[in-house]
Amino acid sequence: MAERWRNTALLVIDMQKDFIEESSMIRVKGGKSIVPNVIRVVELARQHGILVIWVVREHDPRGRDVEIFRRHHYNSDQVGPTVKGTVGAELVDGLIIKEEEDYKIVKTRFSAFFSTNLHSFLQTSGVTNLVIAGVQTPNCIRHTVFDAVELDYPNVTVITDATAAATPEIHTANILDMKNIGVKTPTLHEWSEELA
Amino acid sequence: MAERWRNTALLVIDMQKDFIEESSMIRVKGGKSIVPNVIRVVELARQHGILVIWVVREHDPRGRDVEIFRRHHYNSDQVGPTVKGTVGAELVDGLIIKEEEDYKIVKTRFSAFFSTNLHSFLQTSGVTNLVIAGVQTPNCIRHTVFDAVELDYPNVTVITDATAAATPEIHTANILDMKNIGVKTPTLHEWSEELA
Repeated sequence: MAERWRNTALLVIDMQKDFIEESSMIRVKGGKSIVPNVIRVVELARQHGILVIWVVREHDPRGRDVEIFRRHHYNSDQVGPTVKGTVGAELVDGLIIKEEEDYKIVKTRFSAFFSTNLHSFLQTSGVTNLVIAGVQTPNCIRHTVFDAVELDYPNVTVITDATAAATPEIHTANILDMKNIGVKTPTLHEWSEELA
Repeated sequence: MAERWRNTALLVIDMQKDFIEESSMIRVKGGKSIVPNVIRVVELARQHGILVIWVVREHDPRGRDVEIFRRHHYNSDQVGPTVKGTVGAELVDGLIIKEEEDYKIVKTRFSAFFSTNLHSFLQTSGVTNLVIAGVQTPNCIRHTVFDAVELDYPNVTVITDATAAATPEIHTANILDMKNIGVKTPTLHEWSEELA
């Protein structure tokens, strides 16, 4: 079983407290509701020997590595979103990195491929198939997916109910765009049946 | 004075215990002798308001993000070189990251630009001039320098006695190659006079 999925990796993107918790000013509104499904996706991946890669933001306290359009969050007296080492940068409760098995990628822009060693790591690990969960659909999910397609990963899957956006309409519109470029868009239930 | 150097950054490359300490199996033979000069370069940079960027390796315990040619170091029962979180990955004594001012880049290959956010960070920080110190001349120093030249950084400086290789001959031959593509190659003393 592990053999069958050894060329597959799960990317769990930005499932950090600052993006998910309701007390956070920059939360993704649909994020909280998908947490149980993301937890389940990770469980299923582990059961089938799929490599789990955690993609997170960890920013400079002064915001020097943040996109210009959101750098103002780091200019005040408050701690900015997902600053390295802060509670807000931690994964939400229920998601845990297994240090000896999993891999972690820190990114500073939308795409998990932008200025990171993700492509290098996937290539040398023999990974050709990607499964994606996390937030948020129009930004980090979609632009990671589009980069993967442009880099010719032959098999890219987005779990539609383990990804989320600010509204269901935005989510659905983006899932459609990805489906239209050949991306697989199963629900968690459908994906679990494919695994079985 | 700080104004004059605000478009300049110092890259301190791979000055980690596993590359420098004599007890390490993968040490760069010339590395230990340049430590005082690297410390001095960092002091001078701080005095002149030059941004200090620490470029280091921090590898996966299983070596999954290491170059193929050296991955065998990570297959034994021993801890491999510069594994994230180990003593060997720490900076050598005398070099200290100032968390609120400096910036840190983790790389997994020779060039500090390869699969990192260095170029993105430098662009958005307005840095056009690079000064480089550390180890080792033919690999991480040279390939960072060549990438910087290819990326059209107009002003690239290598401090010749704050960089080192396995032998003086290798060091000198590589410095010459860099000089021949327009890189400035002052000694620490010459560079300090330029700063003054």
